[in-house]
Amino acid sequence: MTPTVIRTARRAAPEDVEALRTFGVSTSHEALGRSGLMKPYMRPIYPGAQIAGGAVTVLAQPGDNWMIHVAIEQVRPGDVLVVACTTDNTDGMFGDLLATSLKARGGLGLVIDAGVRDVRTLTQMGFPVWSRAISAKGTVKATLGSVNVPVVCAGALVHPGDVIVADDDGVLVVPRLEAAATAQKARQREAAEEAKRLRLAAGELGLDMYAMREGLAKAGLVYRDDPEG
Amino acid sequence: MTPTVIRTARRAAPEDVEALRTFGVSTSHEALGRSGLMKPYMRPIYPGAQIAGGAVTVLAQPGDNWMIHVAIEQVRPGDVLVVACTTDNTDGMFGDLLATSLKARGGLGLVIDAGVRDVRTLTQMGFPVWSRAISAKGTVKATLGSVNVPVVCAGALVHPGDVIVADDDGVLVVPRLEAAATAQKARQREAAEEAKRLRLAAGELGLDMYAMREGLAKAGLVYRDDPEG
Amino acid sequence: MTPTVIRTARRAAPEDVEALRTFGVSTSHEALGRSGLMKPYMRPIYPGAQIAGGAVTVLAQPGDNWMIHVAIEQVRPGDVLVVACTTDNTDGMFGDLLATSLKARGGLGLVIDAGVRDVRTLTQMGFPVWSRAISAKGTVKATLGSVNVPVVCAGALVHPGDVIVADDDGVLVVPRLEAAATAQKARQREAAEEAKRLRLAAGELGLDMYAMREGLAKAGLVYRDDPEG
Amino acid sequence: MTPTVIRTARRAAPEDVEALRTFGVSTSHEALGRSGLMKPYMRPIYPGAQIAGGAVTVLAQPGDNWMIHVAIEQVRPGDVLVVACTTDNTDGMFGDLLATSLKARGGLGLVIDAGVRDVRTLTQMGFPVWSRAISAKGTVKATLGSVNVPVVCAGALVHPGDVIVADDDGVLVVPRLEAAATAQKARQREAAEEAKRLRLAAGELGLDMYAMREGLAKAGLVYRDDPEG
Amino acid sequence: MTPTVIRTARRAAPEDVEALRTFGVSTSHEALGRSGLMKPYMRPIYPGAQIAGGAVTVLAQPGDNWMIHVAIEQVRPGDVLVVACTTDNTDGMFGDLLATSLKARGGLGLVIDAGVRDVRTLTQMGFPVWSRAISAKGTVKATLGSVNVPVVCAGALVHPGDVIVADDDGVLVVPRLEAAATAQKARQREAAEEAKRLRLAAGELGLDMYAMREGLAKAGLVYRDDPEG
Amino acid sequence: MTPTVIRTARRAAPEDVEALRTFGVSTSHEALGRSGLMKPYMRPIYPGAQIAGGAVTVLAQPGDNWMIHVAIEQVRPGDVLVVACTTDNTDGMFGDLLATSLKARGGLGLVIDAGVRDVRTLTQMGFPVWSRAISAKGTVKATLGSVNVPVVCAGALVHPGDVIVADDDGVLVVPRLEAAATAQKARQREAAEEAKRLRLAAGELGLDMYAMREGLAKAGLVYRDDPEG
Repeated sequence: MTPTVIRTARRAAPEDVEALRTFGVSTSHEALGRSGLMKPYMRPIYPGAQIAGGAVTVLAQPGDNWMIHVAIEQVRPGDVLVVACTTDNTDGMFGDLLATSLKARGGLGLVIDAGVRDVRTLTQMGFPVWSRAISAKGTVKATLGSVNVPVVCAGALVHPGDVIVADDDGVLVVPRLEAAATAQKARQREAAEEAKRLRLAAGELGLDMYAMREGLAKAGLVYRDDPEG
Repeated sequence: MTPTVIRTARRAAPEDVEALRTFGVSTSHEALGRSGLMKPYMRPIYPGAQIAGGAVTVLAQPGDNWMIHVAIEQVRPGDVLVVACTTDNTDGMFGDLLATSLKARGGLGLVIDAGVRDVRTLTQMGFPVWSRAISAKGTVKATLGSVNVPVVCAGALVHPGDVIVADDDGVLVVPRLEAAATAQKARQREAAEEAKRLRLAAGELGLDMYAMREGLAKAGLVYRDDPEG
Repeated sequence: MTPTVIRTARRAAPEDVEALRTFGVSTSHEALGRSGLMKPYMRPIYPGAQIAGGAVTVLAQPGDNWMIHVAIEQVRPGDVLVVACTTDNTDGMFGDLLATSLKARGGLGLVIDAGVRDVRTLTQMGFPVWSRAISAKGTVKATLGSVNVPVVCAGALVHPGDVIVADDDGVLVVPRLEAAATAQKARQREAAEEAKRLRLAAGELGLDMYAMREGLAKAGLVYRDDPEG
Repeated sequence: MTPTVIRTARRAAPEDVEALRTFGVSTSHEALGRSGLMKPYMRPIYPGAQIAGGAVTVLAQPGDNWMIHVAIEQVRPGDVLVVACTTDNTDGMFGDLLATSLKARGGLGLVIDAGVRDVRTLTQMGFPVWSRAISAKGTVKATLGSVNVPVVCAGALVHPGDVIVADDDGVLVVPRLEAAATAQKARQREAAEEAKRLRLAAGELGLDMYAMREGLAKAGLVYRDDPEG
Repeated sequence: MTPTVIRTARRAAPEDVEALRTFGVSTSHEALGRSGLMKPYMRPIYPGAQIAGGAVTVLAQPGDNWMIHVAIEQVRPGDVLVVACTTDNTDGMFGDLLATSLKARGGLGLVIDAGVRDVRTLTQMGFPVWSRAISAKGTVKATLGSVNVPVVCAGALVHPGDVIVADDDGVLVVPRLEAAATAQKARQREAAEEAKRLRLAAGELGLDMYAMREGLAKAGLVYRDDPEG
Repeated sequence: MTPTVIRTARRAAPEDVEALRTFGVSTSHEALGRSGLMKPYMRPIYPGAQIAGGAVTVLAQPGDNWMIHVAIEQVRPGDVLVVACTTDNTDGMFGDLLATSLKARGGLGLVIDAGVRDVRTLTQMGFPVWSRAISAKGTVKATLGSVNVPVVCAGALVHPGDVIVADDDGVLVVPRLEAAATAQKARQREAAEEAKRLRLAAGELGLDMYAMREGLAKAGLVYRDDPEG
């Protein structure tokens, strides 16, 4: 694969991106039909951040962050940088200088299937990162990769311009062309959940609210009393 | 194994449960004779929670939370739900709706050898969870398991009605019939530790306080001075 | 290897130790030439601590903390205890009593390639620990090891008296005789970074600031426009 | 828990043990209702061995094989030694001398949730071992454990006298009192499978043989043709 | 995502598939530009197998092999079945009955990002499998997935009809439309390597053969003699 | 650290190296006092190889095998190449061309804390490798490292010229200056073991042969009879 940078303006509609951000990862993941989730080893460096934005993708060599510098030029306000490696790596490929630059370009955050460093400074900056590791290990700038090509990041396929939703539950990839429909379904789902929440809080059982008893009996579930009480 | 729900009221005495909660996992684990601990991959979703309660056990299929709905009906005030899977799994089998329902039934918290989601909401609710992962991955409701049968959860054997103690140090299972004796030993241990803490804080060495020097010498420990000082 | 305790006063100069503490792990690691870092599985039990001090090393058996008691006698004010195990282990080999004793001797913190417990109390005490695990699992005091011999801890070689730097980014070992030079280089690096930070914050690209464009082109990087825009 | 050795003669009937050995782990596991399996990290040191025998259980400290020596006295001809550790450990707790002794007592093999060494000699002896690791790391003989108490080994609960079935697919625990019924079900299952095997080998589809098409359609499966062929 | 089966006849040219099989994974991976490799946890159940064929893809739920039955109908002679799961799973989703059926349809082997069982029988059948685990754990047939949709399997993107190359070095995905060019480059590479192999076997150094000395010196490599000889 | 190649002729005496090879890893590890062992994730690519030789060490960047080419020039007949990486990596940094070259220089084998490829060819060549992974992933030649400096490889410290012993039980590092004493102790240990082996094979219990019964009773071991027999 020739090392390549694709310049692209493909993005989802801002109102759909904002809706997905509001509903968050778990609800949007359900609305998308339960696909697109990155593996659960991707964790935020601090709790509470919740973002959504267009993906600028990077395919990098392990221990080499040259292409991240290249990618930042392709970032538009509201984007999220997504870094995949050609093999598993935990080196600290991103720190506070890159965050300063990315933030100055309007980037909202970073998703990286590798390590990150300067996490205390990043936390103070309020610059959110989801990564597989925290590591001070420095990187080289020796080998090319690509920017804005499709990548597999933490087990999920990401195309440039897809919507990245990230919060305390993990990281979700919503394909750009499915953003509007997913946002719409998430709205409906959220509304339905609110009603359920009230009923459950009042003590109604899910068994009754979801009418599960018949299905359970049909599937063969047996109830027995403990002879000792 | 026929999918079965056992209805049982076996629980330890509330004053013993409360004592174990107060002393926490590490002290209770020592008092129990150093057994009953779940593997250290079980981590709380937020720091500072400390609970103890009777176990309602669930054996579930990976990626299937049908039996959690069934189990909530069996929960009594002061109980802790304990979910084991038939194989290793990190899917988000429990979220804020189930937590709302479990809390409404008087459940104190969740211990799950799988994933959990909606962790920001759960944290806001003050509903503690100890899990092997955080994941937004949704689950199906397709295959039966069992409730209130003995399960192996995160490497520890749990019988329904056993006392589950959980805090920042991990999760401990105290067999129901050993709860009283364990609570009693924990009280004694805690009292003895307080005196030791004061002596150590004053600068006394553990070597002297525990009279270890003779044993070390007998075992063959050698002291040498660095020739360079 | 005969179980041995070496009494040694070798330490780096306090002003160099303090400088390394101020610059922290990532900057000091770069200044050292990108070596000496422990593996990223070593994590702090709470965020925000940043320490540097002379290493007192312990080589212990898995699940046996006898030698930690022995080592505390060798600790001088400003030291950091570094515990390595003969094999991978996650047992809770260190808790609040040992921390009380270590603190009373002037110890600044603990780095342990095993588990730690009583983390809530340690957090309240403000006693920082970097460990591979949190576990309530109790340990025995049955088998000798050594104190102040060279050890491999979490993949890094540590000699007694080396400077241990630890913060949210991980744990770094600076060889004692390289402390002064490393501190000096860290100072220079930090000064240079401040200027870069301002330029990046103003929107200048790293591509331009580091003059990377020619190198990238020479290495063969290709830019293409997305035909769809 | 007081360190204890239980002397027990509880075993399943030899003909049931032999039947389970013949059918092997996967078939017996199905016959048992899909429970009792150890985690898949338990691997044989060489391929092709297939054994079944009564469990003599050991609970050992990590890195300490004292109790294995104790346990061998409790082994009867046809037994399988099952070693669990109080925490995860990979030390080489068993080698060719112990194997010579265990074999001389009539032991058939070893299942150990830790490491094993001298694997070339063990292979030459034809003495099968299922373990989580191979490691030359030597162990101490310093701390007691127990023999013939219930243990959790590689995620499975084992009572002394349970039937251990082990082959290239892993390790299964069949509770002693369920051995006869399980062997009987395994026989039936095996007979049914032979007929199916012939039909599948002749090209019949599982979809038709198991009459799955209707269920799939009902569940909502959709077939589409690739427009490009 | 609606559970869907795509019927498709897209395959690479047989002579290119055969060439890729002959050159094997490592050479074809280089020829493809170093992409398309599955993660190295994918291992063959026995050494020595070397296959290449068109991918029939399956997306399955963890612990549920219903869709594998569905997929076998879509297999054409010379195909390789590729099974991905919606989350990490090690259950034994494939055994000798499914292998018998897949072989009868002309399938060459299986690549599964989960577990496999009956490995002794599969080895005797000469039916090769690359998997992340070996496990007897049985599966259910309860939830739909899809067949012949693009999947991410062990970190690699696979489209139906892509060429799967698998041998002792791992598993490679060659996109269908790049199969011819890759086979051609692999031929050239192999020819070049043969000449190099002879020179190296004769004692010539890679340093000289690849003319590396100047580059190394320019990059700053220093040679020093050990003062002790 | 300046990238450096040290030219050194330090090696242990050939007769000691040969003795260590004969006794193998487990016995030599005991003779050395139970230190120097690499982590058990280091596995041979085929069973049965048993080698010992002087270490030529390499410190490489992840995914970059440039320095292996440099190191081969430093190899003398009877040496073993030992490759450590600056961070965890599984890329296939060594294949059949490098093996051909290393073998032509008299190298006996490779120990690499990363991946290896072309394993079928290496097996056919009878060229043994101990690695943490098998992977076809290709590497770059972009960044310098060092040769014949001390390295930490798979958790063990290796100086150039140390004796590397490797067999099916793993990989051991015997410091050069301890080779003679270790070989001598291994001889004595082996002799003692042969006598023990015969006694154990005759049915004598380790409990009696090692006179353990008194120590066990003193430590508090209790025997109880199963009331059910």
